[in-house]
Amino acid sequence: MSGIPAKRPSLEARYTVEGHIWVEGAEGTFLGVGRVLLLEKIKEYGSITRAAGSLEMSYRKAWELVESMNRQAGAPLVVATTGGKGGGGAVLTEAGGRAIKLFRELDAEFRKFREKMSRTVNNGA
Amino acid sequence: MSGIPAKRPSLEARYTVEGHIWVEGAEGTFLGVGRVLLLEKIKEYGSITRAAGSLEMSYRKAWELVESMNRQAGAPLVVATTGGKGGGGAVLTEAGGRAIKLFRELDAEFRKFREKMSRTVNNGA
Repeated sequence: MSGIPAKRPSLEARYTVEGHIWVEGAEGTFLGVGRVLLLEKIKEYGSITRAAGSLEMSYRKAWELVESMNRQAGAPLVVATTGGKGGGGAVLTEAGGRAIKLFRELDAEFRKFREKMSRTVNNGA
Repeated sequence: MSGIPAKRPSLEARYTVEGHIWVEGAEGTFLGVGRVLLLEKIKEYGSITRAAGSLEMSYRKAWELVESMNRQAGAPLVVATTGGKGGGGAVLTEAGGRAIKLFRELDAEFRKFREKMSRTVNNGA
């Protein structure tokens, strides 16, 4: 019985299947956890600058991610709004909202998949 | 129709769902792509040194991974064989063989999951 982890109570599942998924497009990553979180923050704040700040991400990096998503999507996910006092903001488009929803649904399916696989590992290993 | 990637022919699937999975145990990672490849090479070569060399991995790193897997498994996956001319080797145990098989099956299920999710993304996005 050597090798059985001593810290795990016997009733607790011993192993869990973990992982990451992302959606690739023509350029490589199109949507992943970080990109979708950025879209959600842009929706919340109406500003790439503030969205980036809330994620401790540079504006430059956030802008590059938005541009990458816009290029790979069928329609822009984020559009910049210019003018007005204090400069322009950014608006999440309907396509952007659909991208968030799609990724969250994928992620929920992936969670279910990992739970199912964890049960397989714990029963069969 | 801005944003449609010009390099992709229209008949080709536009997006693919990609990802990684691994199995976590009491200490964190128990089995992942690199660890299972190491087990397969140990089975092939009967030597941690040669297995590590074939993967351009240091002996120390390979040994640490083997120890980590052995500690977290119900029974050792690899045992060292001592003595004989030229020093000892390493043998994959039956539990080691089952661990490889289990992970390869998980990985095959994950590939099917990603293919299914890719179809969802391409049809729905």
